[in-house]
Amino acid sequence: MSVLDVIRERRSVRAYKSDPIPEESILRVLEAARLAPSGKNLQPWKFVVVQDVELKKRLAKASNQQDFIADAPLIIVACGFPDECYRAMGRYMESWPVDVTIALEHLILQAQEEGLGTCWIGSFEEEEVKSLLDVPEHVKVLALTPLGYPGEVPEFRGRKPLEKIISYDSF
Amino acid sequence: MSVLDVIRERRSVRAYKSDPIPEESILRVLEAARLAPSGKNLQPWKFVVVQDVELKKRLAKASNQQDFIADAPLIIVACGFPDECYRAMGRYMESWPVDVTIALEHLILQAQEEGLGTCWIGSFEEEEVKSLLDVPEHVKVLALTPLGYPGEVPEFRGRKPLEKIISYDSF
Repeated sequence: MSVLDVIRERRSVRAYKSDPIPEESILRVLEAARLAPSGKNLQPWKFVVVQDVELKKRLAKASNQQDFIADAPLIIVACGFPDECYRAMGRYMESWPVDVTIALEHLILQAQEEGLGTCWIGSFEEEEVKSLLDVPEHVKVLALTPLGYPGEVPEFRGRKPLEKIISYDSF
Repeated sequence: MSVLDVIRERRSVRAYKSDPIPEESILRVLEAARLAPSGKNLQPWKFVVVQDVELKKRLAKASNQQDFIADAPLIIVACGFPDECYRAMGRYMESWPVDVTIALEHLILQAQEEGLGTCWIGSFEEEEVKSLLDVPEHVKVLALTPLGYPGEVPEFRGRKPLEKIISYDSF
């Protein structure tokens, strides 16, 4: 499949089978994240792979009660290091949210290639998630995703047409 | 090519040929961005495609004098809308940097698939870039990338080993 095909087929999956994921698939998915570019190649990221059943349930509760994420065999928690990133993107922001996002989207696209479902989870209580996983004070949690075989085939939700999101030589 | 192959082959390209890019390639690259997921599917983004020779030179100057970006036939300027995004990621941040990053990395991976080079440019003076492109006050510029056929084959810069960036069930 081409990248564009994978992008076209990716959905935010909100129902999961409990079927285990082959180790080779997990390794390729993590490798896709590992190879991401980052500001000054600082790689200010760490991914916590959660398999423990009780912990998954607690993460789901801390994610606005989105209980479906605990049904996936794994939850990936994407963390960023503000202390170890490029600190002057556009002269106004730290690069870690960008860096960690690139890595997590790599993981998500490779998951799609493997037939695995994912879902960007942005609605979560960061302090609770950090406490559950013993994430140090100076580290941020950017997002979570469940990882597992889809138990549903979500509809495509539509996007703005290209004319609305592109302009030439001027905003 | 699989997604992982594309990810493995992508480099930050810092030398470009002036060869024009076929219209179909440009459309597929933009389509990859358009289809990106975003918080609540709000799609808080716009991409300015810069072709004007003088404007490209000025953008390069505003990007820490990285003159190579003006050699590419196009520069893509990725903008985000703080007013139109999900405002409570992790209960502490606006989603637009994440949303725009996903879309721009989609564009970059599809560019690689098309044989085109790109380079995340984070070192730029946002106020100057906004002024050059008439970007409204309330809109942010997240990053730029040149887009064109590579004039160099950059070495792989290396990454941290998987053991350093993964943990299980606890940070």
